Amino acid sequence: MFKGIDHVSIAVENLEEAVALYVERFGACIKHREFIEKDGVEVATVDIGGMCIELVEGKRSDSPIRKFVEKRGPGIHHIAFEVDDIEAALASLEAASIQLIDKKPRAGKEGSLVAFVHPASTQKILYEIVQKNPTAR
Amino acid sequence: MFKGIDHVSIAVENLEEAVALYVERFGACIKHREFIEKDGVEVATVDIGGMCIELVEGKRSDSPIRKFVEKRGPGIHHIAFEVDDIEAALASLEAASIQLIDKKPRAGKEGSLVAFVHPASTQKILYEIVQKNPTAR
Repeated sequence: MFKGIDHVSIAVENLEEAVALYVERFGACIKHREFIEKDGVEVATVDIGGMCIELVEGKRSDSPIRKFVEKRGPGIHHIAFEVDDIEAALASLEAASIQLIDKKPRAGKEGSLVAFVHPASTQKILYEIVQKNPTAR
Repeated sequence: MFKGIDHVSIAVENLEEAVALYVERFGACIKHREFIEKDGVEVATVDIGGMCIELVEGKRSDSPIRKFVEKRGPGIHHIAFEVDDIEAALASLEAASIQLIDKKPRAGKEGSLVAFVHPASTQKILYEIVQKNPTAR
């Protein structure tokens, strides 16, 4: 069902400092940057050897990322699996009694469609499902 | 410096239940299983679309993984970067003032050499560096 890991997402305190660490120390390159208004987050995706790490800073006090960092400190927030067909993937997960946070796909970064799976069904790990280029399929 | 993400490691409460979730619900296949005596952990590596997730259960009360789970609950434990030459990678990281937990590589699973980077230098994220097949280079 899953094509692989699209990215690992890290909730950070300060996006500029995080980007500097990954680019200057780890040799990553910046692949994408975006402010996502509805979630109140600034996102930078960095590429390390063809694999993506998403660095996310909550910019508003109501941002779930800001709340995560305030409660637990910066840390790995979720893992995103890539799928070809997010509607089919969500149907399969529901058929397997996996609880979904998003029963319908919603808009993600870079024009993708995304949905989150409830950690209650995945032994406490937050997973995101991503379909890139949804218009291209 | 880094070739990419070798695996994402998840500290679990019960390895059999974790393997069942990933294999039966997520369509993963088991790539490797090993009990690592010195760390007191049982490890199962599962492959999802060519990407690896390492599921780790602490089997002894002195296991850092057991302590992690008791303190914080099951969760994503670390991200492992693959390198061609772990000695060179550690030297580069030290030259960049990155603090290391393991200044010298040590034996990891499947005959690899591994070293952990101190989260104090990586904005609280635990990173592992992995050189697979060290005799082959």
